[in-house]
Amino acid sequence: MERKDLLGLRGMPRAEIEALISTAARMRQVGERRIKKVPTLRGRLVVSLFFENSTRTRTSFELAAKRLSADTLSFNVSTSSTAKGETLMDTARNIHAMQPDCIVIRHASAGAPALLARSFPFSVINAGDGINEHPSQALLDMLTMSDHWGALDGRTVAIVGDVQHSRVARSNIFGLATMGARVVVAGPGTMCRRELAALPVTRRHTIDEVVGEADAIMMLRIQRERLGKAMLPSAREYAAFYGLDLDRLQRARPEVLVMHPGPINRGVEIGAEVADGGRSVILDQVTNGIAVRMALLYHLLGREGAVDEG
Amino acid sequence: MERKDLLGLRGMPRAEIEALISTAARMRQVGERRIKKVPTLRGRLVVSLFFENSTRTRTSFELAAKRLSADTLSFNVSTSSTAKGETLMDTARNIHAMQPDCIVIRHASAGAPALLARSFPFSVINAGDGINEHPSQALLDMLTMSDHWGALDGRTVAIVGDVQHSRVARSNIFGLATMGARVVVAGPGTMCRRELAALPVTRRHTIDEVVGEADAIMMLRIQRERLGKAMLPSAREYAAFYGLDLDRLQRARPEVLVMHPGPINRGVEIGAEVADGGRSVILDQVTNGIAVRMALLYHLLGREGAVDEG
Amino acid sequence: MERKDLLGLRGMPRAEIEALISTAARMRQVGERRIKKVPTLRGRLVVSLFFENSTRTRTSFELAAKRLSADTLSFNVSTSSTAKGETLMDTARNIHAMQPDCIVIRHASAGAPALLARSFPFSVINAGDGINEHPSQALLDMLTMSDHWGALDGRTVAIVGDVQHSRVARSNIFGLATMGARVVVAGPGTMCRRELAALPVTRRHTIDEVVGEADAIMMLRIQRERLGKAMLPSAREYAAFYGLDLDRLQRARPEVLVMHPGPINRGVEIGAEVADGGRSVILDQVTNGIAVRMALLYHLLGREGAVDEG
Repeated sequence: MERKDLLGLRGMPRAEIEALISTAARMRQVGERRIKKVPTLRGRLVVSLFFENSTRTRTSFELAAKRLSADTLSFNVSTSSTAKGETLMDTARNIHAMQPDCIVIRHASAGAPALLARSFPFSVINAGDGINEHPSQALLDMLTMSDHWGALDGRTVAIVGDVQHSRVARSNIFGLATMGARVVVAGPGTMCRRELAALPVTRRHTIDEVVGEADAIMMLRIQRERLGKAMLPSAREYAAFYGLDLDRLQRARPEVLVMHPGPINRGVEIGAEVADGGRSVILDQVTNGIAVRMALLYHLLGREGAVDEG
Repeated sequence: MERKDLLGLRGMPRAEIEALISTAARMRQVGERRIKKVPTLRGRLVVSLFFENSTRTRTSFELAAKRLSADTLSFNVSTSSTAKGETLMDTARNIHAMQPDCIVIRHASAGAPALLARSFPFSVINAGDGINEHPSQALLDMLTMSDHWGALDGRTVAIVGDVQHSRVARSNIFGLATMGARVVVAGPGTMCRRELAALPVTRRHTIDEVVGEADAIMMLRIQRERLGKAMLPSAREYAAFYGLDLDRLQRARPEVLVMHPGPINRGVEIGAEVADGGRSVILDQVTNGIAVRMALLYHLLGREGAVDEG
Repeated sequence: MERKDLLGLRGMPRAEIEALISTAARMRQVGERRIKKVPTLRGRLVVSLFFENSTRTRTSFELAAKRLSADTLSFNVSTSSTAKGETLMDTARNIHAMQPDCIVIRHASAGAPALLARSFPFSVINAGDGINEHPSQALLDMLTMSDHWGALDGRTVAIVGDVQHSRVARSNIFGLATMGARVVVAGPGTMCRRELAALPVTRRHTIDEVVGEADAIMMLRIQRERLGKAMLPSAREYAAFYGLDLDRLQRARPEVLVMHPGPINRGVEIGAEVADGGRSVILDQVTNGIAVRMALLYHLLGREGAVDEG
């Protein structure tokens, strides 16, 4: 792989996705050993630069870096205290002067990671930019499916919830299409509008329609503070119409996979018994997250740069 | 030692306490070297999960882990933002998916560490649970006494202050009884009630009574915000009736040890001249804290698990 | 070098400054390698103790420590929550009990680092004390100049802004004088008073006077919250009278160096086009900061202590 950055899955060739998933499966074994560490990236510097807070994703990347023996540095930047645009570049220029090998960035603006990738020689990994993409999440989702199915061709994946504003959904939609899977989506009208037709998905009106046909059901996290406002349902209504509870699950295929990017709102988008039940692979997703991020760092930083082995 | 967890000193056999103290004494030598690091736990992951903030205890565990070359990860969870019970388990399940070898947990609820220990294969170290136990603190206290006395048999240890609500006191009471020492306690009526009779301690009414007979006087930290309310004395009254000042110390045995788990409230439970004086071993306790935690990690993670050397 | 601490550049012999700058130039090469790490300080503990927050300086020291393979521990102490003096010593005593090799301290009170240096055997690096000194900043500034000029003898360095209250300015004034350079200063009357005559500097009244004669122009960061009060100009006035914009820069020597300790206030003390322009070495200063701090740790901790190789 001659790739410098990972900005999104839109347009990423199938061979690259397959290579990352297969490397991730090998990397996962490192986590199962007593000594969970390989020297691959010793002396390399991975900086996480999160303009939106996320302990989980940041931790997953940092653990991945540590398992490869890289050094890590973490900047938590509250957007409130920074002017936009210019400050991102200023911050990045200063970090660049610290000679990092890779920056993992989360930012409220779509395109922020691409801007850094164009402007600097270090590798950039998009850990979520606005409502654009969150590619490492989709890769870990596909690794999880691939563990159960092998190839994804011909499979049907349902994505339920605020598809419209979800970067997790978008990265999965692009990646799954490339891998030959079919994506069906459902959610409240305001969260699942006609504009989605521009993407390779099939819109359904109710969760019940998609549950029956899916090989995997991916429930999106609902921002609880958004519910009950304007044209949006209350938490109780949301659960009734779009939540995955045991009743609904019984109408799914027996071997269906239940997925969620976490952290879950129990009793809202997913019932507690479903989240903890036998079809849930939610915790496998967490384990696979570290493996996928190890694979990413390995592929991006393993490439031959201008600078040779010291 | 075939122990998986350290939840408390209640019921821990004497041989195990002795083994931990003697390992800690050896571990302490690592800190005295120029290269303060051994490769024992290289590639192992120790996670600290503190639902109550404590820079000191968390730092002590993390330094201990680093000296053994383990990787560390720290989660600081404010209880306010989490629903109880379920969230603890949810958080723990997610951390478990990151494949840690050990979780060091502090939680406001007695029994939280035991719940994790029963539910997960990783080792659990209780770093304080409600008013139940704080065993590593008691072990470091016993190491400190043992440095001065050798065996603890027949020694008298006074614990002064809010014995009733102190997990430090409880762990010491259990551990010291097992090691053959006698514990006498004193404190305001509301902090040192009759119920203590269920524990292997002798209650006294004033600090003056215990000072004369003790080989070590352990002053408990007072929560300043609790003083001056309801039936509790003001800070000034507390110092007058229960504080250890130079006057009182002069009536103690000449070779008495003055101890405190820190951080101290100078001029309240302990006078500045006493804390900094020749009988104080308070800073030795800090040094011994790291050594004891190294010994714990060594014993708990050194055991043979299901997973073999990678 | 037989030095234990770095408290300031006042009185530091020229040979020592030269040794540090030349070591830093070698250390910088480590950052240019693929494996940015040498084992020099493996198993040593560097503690940062910042009573005033500064992500940049703290990060620079921590990266320096990591590149030398030292372990790091970071305490962020808000001054508000601590009583003065006594608490500093209490905190330091507790950290000392953790057996650190070096403490990097920033404190609002001039003299706080010197107090620790006198009281403890560990090395102390002053990372800024009140309006006294910030020596590692001045060393990195001198390394940056030395990269362009070789020797500093006979060079003229202009320092512009709140010279009166700047520890960066003071450390540079002492260091540059020792290295044979001439320092000229300019700033608003309240920030550049007659008392400066006690230092080896020449006062000018306007920035225009110093721009023409300087080989390097060092713009100091303005505390924006201080502007527009009492006898101080507004941000707009400050920029007009004391800011370095393109117009002013055109009247400077063609090979002048533009410097700033960062973070910059674009459009106030420095114009954006100047900060990002061809004469700016601001980002080199960031890179050199890590190199200089590596050199400091190497010289201070490399000395033979009471304790030998473990």
